[in-house]
This record gives sequence, C-alpha cells and structure tokens, in this order.
Amino acid sequence: MQNSLLNHRSIRDFSNEGIPQTAVDTMIDAACRASTTGNMQLYSIVLTTKDSLKQKLWEAHFKQQMVKQAPLVATFCADFNRFNKWCDLNCAKPGYDNFLSFFTAAIDALLAAQNFCIAAEELGYGICYLGTTTYMAKKISDILDLPNHVVPITTVVTGKPNTSPTLTDRLPNEAIVHHETYIDYTDERIKQLYAQKEGLEMYQKIVKDNGVENLAQVFTQKRYTKNDNVTFSNMLLELLRQKGFMNHDQ
Amino acid sequence: MQNSLLNHRSIRDFSNEGIPQTAVDTMIDAACRASTTGNMQLYSIVLTTKDSLKQKLWEAHFKQQMVKQAPLVATFCADFNRFNKWCDLNCAKPGYDNFLSFFTAAIDALLAAQNFCIAAEELGYGICYLGTTTYMAKKISDILDLPNHVVPITTVVTGKPNTSPTLTDRLPNEAIVHHETYIDYTDERIKQLYAQKEGLEMYQKIVKDNGVENLAQVFTQKRYTKNDNVTFSNMLLELLRQKGFMNHDQ
Repeated sequence: MQNSLLNHRSIRDFSNEGIPQTAVDTMIDAACRASTTGNMQLYSIVLTTKDSLKQKLWEAHFKQQMVKQAPLVATFCADFNRFNKWCDLNCAKPGYDNFLSFFTAAIDALLAAQNFCIAAEELGYGICYLGTTTYMAKKISDILDLPNHVVPITTVVTGKPNTSPTLTDRLPNEAIVHHETYIDYTDERIKQLYAQKEGLEMYQKIVKDNGVENLAQVFTQKRYTKNDNVTFSNMLLELLRQKGFMNHDQ
Repeated sequence: MQNSLLNHRSIRDFSNEGIPQTAVDTMIDAACRASTTGNMQLYSIVLTTKDSLKQKLWEAHFKQQMVKQAPLVATFCADFNRFNKWCDLNCAKPGYDNFLSFFTAAIDALLAAQNFCIAAEELGYGICYLGTTTYMAKKISDILDLPNHVVPITTVVTGKPNTSPTLTDRLPNEAIVHHETYIDYTDERIKQLYAQKEGLEMYQKIVKDNGVENLAQVFTQKRYTKNDNVTFSNMLLELLRQKGFMNHDQ
C-alpha cells in the first residue's frame, strides 16, 4: 500500500522552493487519469503561480497565508464550457444548463483533484485543500476569469513542506462504515464514537481557547456557524444561477 | 509514481471471488485518511454485499450488471446526521441544514471515495464509479435506509477484474489546464483539442451504431439528454429538500 494514501497530512507552511514543470506535469497526468463521467472530463484546472494573482486569491480565501506562500495554487473547476462549445460546433444541442450537470462536473473535478494531491504527495510535495473555494466561489471566479458554465469547486495549494505535522486523528472506521444498509446512531453510540476525539489534549486546549463548553460548540459557534453557512449557501446557489446551471429551476 | 494513479481503467466485469476483510479494511483506512473539511468526516460508507440488496441497487442503477456481479458495492454518502447528533448531545446547535453544508459533505465523500478506489486498485482489485447514484439518489436512499441529512453521492463497485481493458483516451492535458487564469477556447482551439478523440475508430463505430452524425451528438441525443438531466436535476434537488439540506431556500 502506497504510503501517501495512509499518511496524508495537510501542509499549511511551505518552503519557497518552486515545483519543476516535470513534477507539475505528473500531477496533471494523474488528475486526468481519474474516473470521469462518460469520459467527458468535465473539469478545468487553473494553475496560478504569479504573486499578483496569488495575492488576490489570498484575499478571497480569507487571507490564509499558505495561498501566498505556496508556489502553486491549483483551482479545480466544474467545467461544461469546453464540452458545450464542442457540442455547439457539432450541431449537437447541449442540455447541460442544470443542477445535475453541475453536480456531475463537480464530481469529476473532485476526483481529479484527489488524484492530483496523491501524485503531489508521492513526489514529495505537501498539499492543503481550501474549503473557502465554495464560500467565495463568485470572487474566485472573477479573479480567474471563469466563463459561463465554469464554477470553482476546490483549491489545492502545493509546494515543498516546511513542517512535518503529526497524523491527524480520525473517528474509528466503525463510525464511518455501515454494513448492508445504514444503521442509525443511538445517543450512546455517538458518545462512544466521539469519546476518543473529545479526550485529545489538543482539542481540550481548543475548547478552552475558544471559551466554549465543548468541542462540538467550537464547530457550531466558532468555525462553521449557521449564519455563515446560510450566507455562503445563498451566494453559491446564486453563482450557479449566474453561471447557467439552474435554468430548469424557475 | 504509483502505477495505479496513472493506469486506472474502470472495470465493469468481475470474477466471483470475494474480497478478504483485511483488504476492505485497508480501503476504508485509505478512504478515512483523505482530506476532510475541518476534520469533521462528513461522510458515511455503506458496504453492501448481500444479493437481495444488490438486486435492489441493481434496479436503481439502471440495471447495470456489474452491480449484481461485483462482490462489494460501496455507496459513499454526504452525512451530516452523525455530526448533528453529536452536536445535539453537546448543547451545540448545528447550523448545517443548508446547501453549502450538503456540498461540503459531498466533497468529503468524494475525496474519501477516490482514496478508497486507489487503495482498491493498489491491492489488485478493479473499480467502477456509478454516475447513476445522483440520478436515482432517492431510490438508493430508500434501499439503504438513509436518514435525514444523509444523501448518496457516488457508488463504487469493486472486485477482482475479469477483464483487462486498454487505457481509455483522454483529452490532451493542455485542454484541461489553464495558466494563471482561465483562457477561453476559440472554435479553432476546440477543434484541435477534440480532433484526436473524434478520430478514434472506437468512437467512429459508436457514432455509426447510434445513427447520429458525430460523437458530440452521441452525448447530447443518446447518453446525456436534456430531458433526462432536467428530470434528474429536479429529483436531486427535491431529495436535498426532503433530507433537510435546503431549509434556507424558501
């Protein structure tokens, strides 16, 4: 089993060493070999390296310093623009201005992104996904000049790691896996499954630093609040409408 | 570079050999090491092996025979149910009944799925993603007893390959990659980028067999039609509402 699969750590601190073109090419090769719906390859990958553009992306991504620091910022986009243009040139009327098509293209983009990341790690680079891409999709779309039917889905920053973090905790596999059908969780089961996580010193410090009662409240009150989620939901749905992916939803 | 990354072939014909538990465990280990938003692990994996259930899933997945044939059918679900229950038990009010939260969980599920697939391939198993999961998400949800805030995103069938297909064609990398910002395609560029694909004998046969003029029309008129896409879009959005992920969208 490949080490990088079982030993992924997100890297948020990069050296200023660049990435040779041959390595970038291999990451792209890997991305493009991922499974893709009907072999349509409904994604584009925007590779940004210029400081002036990274500065703008950094602002969009909530000023996370790794966006400026990493030598390469890869934005993975759901893309029906290229495919639609090909259809138009072939007297084939594309019917992809809808939510299912957007979601299909997003799946394609994400599988490609994960292959890109694994290739990067196998080549000795570190990666971090930026969840801020979906929050700030409109602003990122403007910075990167994305046309109709192209929506940014996720961003990967990559470069030589400046740190070697320890492996992050995960819930036990039995928390994630259901056999045959979904067996819903009792309160007792939830407590068991989260007990180890809640007991970790690192999280107890975070709870204390945030002045809340427990780890769950760190998420609901500090990191991923309802207000933010609703705001970003409306922004993302509005962008899908603007980009021509909700034409059936009048 | 790991072979499986650059040599993925979708497998649609499996031997009747089962998968040992240790191998399944490794696939799950790999899935759970994928990047996940805020380390929330917003996914569940339903592993279905029983013939009676596979029969039902086979019907939902447009009767693709590999669903019955593969020893293991893994349904990757966006799951906020587990996390919400944990929040509720901790006097933390979850604010995740919205589209952004659904999409975040879908991203988590897809990164986990891709790690699962790469691990499977490294262990000598073959995989195929089923795009029908999002088309028939409601039916699959019913078969697998998925509760509120759990939506099936993709399905992976896996087992020992009965075939060794050749590598599928891909567009040239330059069709996928944009440098710095997105450079939109001219008609001429589209023609160049799709020329090789259109020239492949395999596709010319498909065009002929489908009785259409060209490959693009195979997609728009036969495989991914507007009517189907609109129908499945409305079904998927309705399921998101039913599962409590569109409560902001009145």
